[in-house]
Amino acid sequence: MKKEEISAWFQSLQDQICKEINLLEGAEVFHEDQWERAGGGGGRSRAISGEMIEKGGVNFSAVHGEMPAKISSALGLEPNQFFATGVSIVLHPKNPMIPIIHMNVRYFETDKGDWWFGGGIDVTPHYVDEKDAIFFHKYLKERCDQYGDHWYPKFKTWADYYFFIKHRNETRGIGGIFFDRVNTKEFGTKEQCFNFVQDIGNSFVPIYKTFAERHRNEPYTEAQQEWQYLRRSRYVEFNLVWDRGTKFGLDTNGRTESILMSMPPMAKWVYDHQVKPDSHEEKTQKLLVKGIDWINYKEA
Amino acid sequence: MKKEEISAWFQSLQDQICKEINLLEGAEVFHEDQWERAGGGGGRSRAISGEMIEKGGVNFSAVHGEMPAKISSALGLEPNQFFATGVSIVLHPKNPMIPIIHMNVRYFETDKGDWWFGGGIDVTPHYVDEKDAIFFHKYLKERCDQYGDHWYPKFKTWADYYFFIKHRNETRGIGGIFFDRVNTKEFGTKEQCFNFVQDIGNSFVPIYKTFAERHRNEPYTEAQQEWQYLRRSRYVEFNLVWDRGTKFGLDTNGRTESILMSMPPMAKWVYDHQVKPDSHEEKTQKLLVKGIDWINYKEA
Repeated sequence: MKKEEISAWFQSLQDQICKEINLLEGAEVFHEDQWERAGGGGGRSRAISGEMIEKGGVNFSAVHGEMPAKISSALGLEPNQFFATGVSIVLHPKNPMIPIIHMNVRYFETDKGDWWFGGGIDVTPHYVDEKDAIFFHKYLKERCDQYGDHWYPKFKTWADYYFFIKHRNETRGIGGIFFDRVNTKEFGTKEQCFNFVQDIGNSFVPIYKTFAERHRNEPYTEAQQEWQYLRRSRYVEFNLVWDRGTKFGLDTNGRTESILMSMPPMAKWVYDHQVKPDSHEEKTQKLLVKGIDWINYKEA
Repeated sequence: MKKEEISAWFQSLQDQICKEINLLEGAEVFHEDQWERAGGGGGRSRAISGEMIEKGGVNFSAVHGEMPAKISSALGLEPNQFFATGVSIVLHPKNPMIPIIHMNVRYFETDKGDWWFGGGIDVTPHYVDEKDAIFFHKYLKERCDQYGDHWYPKFKTWADYYFFIKHRNETRGIGGIFFDRVNTKEFGTKEQCFNFVQDIGNSFVPIYKTFAERHRNEPYTEAQQEWQYLRRSRYVEFNLVWDRGTKFGLDTNGRTESILMSMPPMAKWVYDHQVKPDSHEEKTQKLLVKGIDWINYKEA
């Protein structure tokens, strides 16, 4: 399977997701910027500004060139020419009852024969809705189980650890799945790896549509919107302090506006904010922990 | 000179600055939290929520204990017991015509005989006011010049490089001074080093008072407030992505609420925001560069 084929599929995934988001919004909500990378390749960034989705992006890129020595040694690779392609999405909804969603699917190879797929999808509710969380994790488990029933537990745990805000001792949200270096060594043929990544990519629309349709018309108060701004500041903290993809991009002179498309439209910080006992906010905070078994979760 | 004496002076500096801020605000605007560090020592955090200063903090700490091996080797020191004390301030004003200000003065020593002072003061205007910038840099130069006329150029350049948002290719503001590892090797006696740090600490009030009195009653538009929110998001980006003090604190399980007191009350991100030609915003952006000689600057 050629890299061009994988890259073309990612590009078609971007098109399909944007089309579906426009349908959900009932309008064309994307602003496209095509950009080129000095070292080789480029991308197609699509920033969103809609009625339902206040801010976000659906980005495609395919870049190549010489790998900086610092990076090849960090990845345990010999000096090489690399190729990397993928789709990245972050959507910040206006209504705090709709969760923030993130997805990334990517493929990487070198001219020395190394290659792998990576990616993940995770959800950051401002208010945890247990029904949503169960639906989301069951949906992901079904996709993963087609390739062996050990993958969902492995990738779910990986997400719990990856999407963790260490300095707050809380998870970014209700997790999802995270995976990296998926290749034939343990996963099967290259076709199977690619099929898996396609299945995850294709799951974005049905998952987000479910959340959007459930919550887009839900009323909310000003206090709930304030809470949303506080949760968004945690999202900022995770992405700028801990997210390896963001750090890598900013460190290696990536396209800043595309990398920081994940930033929310507006965020607030309040010194030592405390939630009220027995509130929905407190319940949410208690569910921002690693290791919740959403598949067998019993709603209170 | 004993560490207790230095630490006591820092604590008195915190008291004096808080007193002056309360006078400027015409009310008691601080909320104090005393905290202890598991490994030894603790601090006195004072969070501000005022009419003029929307959010900020004036923090004192004096911590000690065993230095993690990772840190001692990064500092080029043998394994040791350390002591560190200092005052840190960040103030986010409500009125966008008042700049954001930051100051830090600190002292560090080990039981192996190493010691040094460090610190800095820098200003981040939402709108650069050249008169303010000239006043600020001249004021700092006068303080530094008492110890030799090579210090201001050295510490000013250090600030230009330190307070730099690499991924935006812009400085955080109009700079100021930044210094580290100030000790007898090049600076003079320990008393002289301490005197210098005291002079910088004592300059905070007259500097901030000047900005506050000049601008606190200046009218501003909603559009100017929007610009303030955008500038604040750059402040967030600098502190969470590049500031070594913040990273060090978050990495070593420092007190998160005290470290992140530097976060603004509210910030906004807009995809690929562009300033209007010949606007005050464009002028500001053009002045966010390294190497401006504010001492000999001629106002346009």
